[in-house]
Amino acid sequence: MSNVAKQMEAVRVLGPGRFGRAATILAEMFSDQNYSNFISLAGPIIPGGLRTLIVDLVDQRLIDGIVTTGANVTHDMLEALGHRHLVGSETLNDAKLKRLGLSRIYDLLVEQKAIEHLEKTTYQMLNRISESKRRNIATYELLWDFGKQLLDNHSLLRTAQKRSVPIFCPGIFDSMLGLNLWTYSRLDPLMINPFKDFSKLVDMTYETKKVGAVILGGGMPKHHVLIANSYRGGVDAAIQITLDRPEGGGASGAPLEEAISWGKIKNEKKLATIVGDATVIFPLLTLAALERVKKSS
Amino acid sequence: MSNVAKQMEAVRVLGPGRFGRAATILAEMFSDQNYSNFISLAGPIIPGGLRTLIVDLVDQRLIDGIVTTGANVTHDMLEALGHRHLVGSETLNDAKLKRLGLSRIYDLLVEQKAIEHLEKTTYQMLNRISESKRRNIATYELLWDFGKQLLDNHSLLRTAQKRSVPIFCPGIFDSMLGLNLWTYSRLDPLMINPFKDFSKLVDMTYETKKVGAVILGGGMPKHHVLIANSYRGGVDAAIQITLDRPEGGGASGAPLEEAISWGKIKNEKKLATIVGDATVIFPLLTLAALERVKKSS
Amino acid sequence: MSNVAKQMEAVRVLGPGRFGRAATILAEMFSDQNYSNFISLAGPIIPGGLRTLIVDLVDQRLIDGIVTTGANVTHDMLEALGHRHLVGSETLNDAKLKRLGLSRIYDLLVEQKAIEHLEKTTYQMLNRISESKRRNIATYELLWDFGKQLLDNHSLLRTAQKRSVPIFCPGIFDSMLGLNLWTYSRLDPLMINPFKDFSKLVDMTYETKKVGAVILGGGMPKHHVLIANSYRGGVDAAIQITLDRPEGGGASGAPLEEAISWGKIKNEKKLATIVGDATVIFPLLTLAALERVKKSS
Amino acid sequence: MSNVAKQMEAVRVLGPGRFGRAATILAEMFSDQNYSNFISLAGPIIPGGLRTLIVDLVDQRLIDGIVTTGANVTHDMLEALGHRHLVGSETLNDAKLKRLGLSRIYDLLVEQKAIEHLEKTTYQMLNRISESKRRNIATYELLWDFGKQLLDNHSLLRTAQKRSVPIFCPGIFDSMLGLNLWTYSRLDPLMINPFKDFSKLVDMTYETKKVGAVILGGGMPKHHVLIANSYRGGVDAAIQITLDRPEGGGASGAPLEEAISWGKIKNEKKLATIVGDATVIFPLLTLAALERVKKSS
Repeated sequence: MSNVAKQMEAVRVLGPGRFGRAATILAEMFSDQNYSNFISLAGPIIPGGLRTLIVDLVDQRLIDGIVTTGANVTHDMLEALGHRHLVGSETLNDAKLKRLGLSRIYDLLVEQKAIEHLEKTTYQMLNRISESKRRNIATYELLWDFGKQLLDNHSLLRTAQKRSVPIFCPGIFDSMLGLNLWTYSRLDPLMINPFKDFSKLVDMTYETKKVGAVILGGGMPKHHVLIANSYRGGVDAAIQITLDRPEGGGASGAPLEEAISWGKIKNEKKLATIVGDATVIFPLLTLAALERVKKSS
Repeated sequence: MSNVAKQMEAVRVLGPGRFGRAATILAEMFSDQNYSNFISLAGPIIPGGLRTLIVDLVDQRLIDGIVTTGANVTHDMLEALGHRHLVGSETLNDAKLKRLGLSRIYDLLVEQKAIEHLEKTTYQMLNRISESKRRNIATYELLWDFGKQLLDNHSLLRTAQKRSVPIFCPGIFDSMLGLNLWTYSRLDPLMINPFKDFSKLVDMTYETKKVGAVILGGGMPKHHVLIANSYRGGVDAAIQITLDRPEGGGASGAPLEEAISWGKIKNEKKLATIVGDATVIFPLLTLAALERVKKSS
Repeated sequence: MSNVAKQMEAVRVLGPGRFGRAATILAEMFSDQNYSNFISLAGPIIPGGLRTLIVDLVDQRLIDGIVTTGANVTHDMLEALGHRHLVGSETLNDAKLKRLGLSRIYDLLVEQKAIEHLEKTTYQMLNRISESKRRNIATYELLWDFGKQLLDNHSLLRTAQKRSVPIFCPGIFDSMLGLNLWTYSRLDPLMINPFKDFSKLVDMTYETKKVGAVILGGGMPKHHVLIANSYRGGVDAAIQITLDRPEGGGASGAPLEEAISWGKIKNEKKLATIVGDATVIFPLLTLAALERVKKSS
Repeated sequence: MSNVAKQMEAVRVLGPGRFGRAATILAEMFSDQNYSNFISLAGPIIPGGLRTLIVDLVDQRLIDGIVTTGANVTHDMLEALGHRHLVGSETLNDAKLKRLGLSRIYDLLVEQKAIEHLEKTTYQMLNRISESKRRNIATYELLWDFGKQLLDNHSLLRTAQKRSVPIFCPGIFDSMLGLNLWTYSRLDPLMINPFKDFSKLVDMTYETKKVGAVILGGGMPKHHVLIANSYRGGVDAAIQITLDRPEGGGASGAPLEEAISWGKIKNEKKLATIVGDATVIFPLLTLAALERVKKSS
């Protein structure tokens, strides 16, 4: 695999060149102790099969901070509660699925009863957090508290809590988990303070010599990692894997180079964009990077 | 134009069929008084030239609620302060642009001095909001307060405030404006409460007979409009315009039908997805819909 | 409509800027008598509802040459024989459709009996062409001969023949019509000579002061129009509408600028790429261009 | 690598599920002696770094037939003549490149002098083919004749000729090589007969128990492999890797399932589409498939 990645890098142009360069950059992020690495997760990274991989990277201390959508947190919790996704198809009838108590993510199905289970568990876990803490809590604090209470060792929330890796979830309000937080807040004290999250995130970028950014998908998680690094003059190295397009001008599909003009990335030398599906590309890229790290150590 | 849209609808399949159907659905949303219409804005909708159009729709009471990224709010404020984007190119050197004090969005350039101007103005506007209000403020309240203070009648924030149309910005933290809010909060009291936003948004969906959703781009704004409607059993009609793909499983590119299985959309009958750039398609679609409304009235 | 296009052009950046610029370029191609205009058709342009529009442009002498896939020729002939597509859905079961004698193009259905009808008719039409001609025939000659024999005045083949507009079909072998030509050739003399086509196409580019290229979709038709113009130093103006991406390096998604380095396009000044579905965008763009032509005349 | 692919297949949904399934199907095509495998090449497969891989697969008799664009043949010949691509960037100025004698494919550069070298060599090679043969030659015969005359053992044309693997090039006219064939034909006898190609291709699909299709990119090569198999009732197994979209209705982005309704594919059981860049995905997929073949043998 490492050889294939090297051959691809030797092409130096087009997709193979970008894949090979990304493997080299990722290997540097993983092996150079000066780096703190942040990974952003948008799209169905956890339900799409990368849960084990991300947990392993956190457990091996190769990732220092996570910025994610609420959906990925929701799915980590669903799996921690013992629920598995079902195999469906993108051509199933959605009205029928709803009647059957199933919700669809492309060809993956989630049982509504799992989501109801999550609701109850969320309330129980919130009740175990002290009211004073709940009155002004960052998402990373909340998710560490949840991680402590989840019994599943394969859980990203639990592993992140064990390794003191913060999970930032700036759009936590916008997810199934977020609905539970909102309904809870209507009866019991709960105030999430995203400013605390941002302070923690910015502090982390200051306390390290180098920042590496691993960007899976676009969305707010991508932009959030980058903008938090603008105070320190930008990240030092970044790779992104996305199917979003640049022409529309949205941040999701923007080339990493564009972020240089905003001061969110330092220079062009350690950047690689791979146009592709992160759930396919990232496991292969990580394999290539880790083999390279092993060889050189 | 109305004729062309009708001819396109007559094709009934492929892109023209979807464009024609979307025009019909939009015309219904605009003419049927039972509808409250929510528009979601992701990507450079405001800097991409749709500011006037969105302001007009709000001014004419055709849009009742807005869910947007922080970036679009930021750009509305920049323009309200008198700054205009510059015309660049997607092939410009970003390190050079940074040295010149210019930041890039594809082929559009923003002056850093405009962003500095925004920072000062934001602080001034925040100071004029009472401290008690600032200690627990929803984004829609904050943006109405800003709207009141902006003197530009072409401003979306100002027009929305005049028309009592709330602008929800669940990811406000993740924008240039959001950075200003965060730095302000480190010295002065400011606590944004997204739960208040969500309560307002959900209440609005309950207080209307029908909900129409106009989804420009994907991201959190898209998902947020839809998830807020899950309590009432889903939106009644929806159109989306996006270049994001469905296969990766992310919410941005998901077909509207998928949301039926989640209870966020009611049924398949009044749904249309157009694969395209919202800044190109939406003005043309609106023209077709409004011509149709005029003819039938 | 013309006003909307002008407003879009005034944005000068992102999608609206490109749409507006494309409208201006197309208006020039349509109004400046020095231009010979070539249109390339890839993807379901004819079955996707643009048959009437393309026929009108040919009939009004706004298009001087066509380069198309065999599929678009096949569908023009099917419609000329009285067959209409059926409205399906992209989620239908294809094995079931096959049993029902239906073939699918996304959400459009074609009856197999229509294709059988085409086969018989093709043989009859070929029989009416003299054997000597059949032994060395260009695709544009063949399609003119077919056009003469088709009774449908809405047919592109017939209209093109009437207007002496050649239809070049370099991949004619690769279509349902092409299969019929191949089976015919196994029993009766038929030799298609694409070199004759190319000579005619190159001659046309020499005999005009200016060449305009209207590129709908990518594929061989796009590349063929451009490469044929390399002998004269490139086309003078070009617009393209495509959903294909540039990053993979394929010609279909390549920016027009790239063709300058190959000598297929003259300079950057009269080029516009719109990322979108040609069957949606082209009718709207043509409307905008024709309104502009009318106003200035 | 084989383990990673198995883990991905275990996900069974979304991108990883499709990658894993594709690896399984490809392993079956490579190991089951009943299969004749056809590969289609569209986009810069050869200049994009897959030349060695494709040559190896042909040399190991894992591929029995090739359908390609003219551009890939052109680039194989350029490399066989000793020319290498240069490393550029997608932001270079194309007018400037032209003045420097360089032509661009995204971030890859080709020297015009290499293309001139190819022209002379093509004429020399054509002169060495007997006039009688030249008067009625299939593309696969022509490319075997060229393969015989090329001295580079890394050449796809040479290796294919040695292994008697036909290279079908239905759009040969539409390439730099095609221009050379056309100019030659204006002075010397040369008549390419695509009907002979198609007869050979169809015969091959009849003479094998099973047909496997490996589709890299879309375009005419994809469609050509599939349509040629419609006479035998469709291919038995197929994988495709493409960045093209399905919604526009073009054959390039169409899901493989659609081809079932046309009788070009037998059933849904052995089909997998990976949304991605073939030059990135195919080397990794092949590695996974070959490891699996080795393990089971």
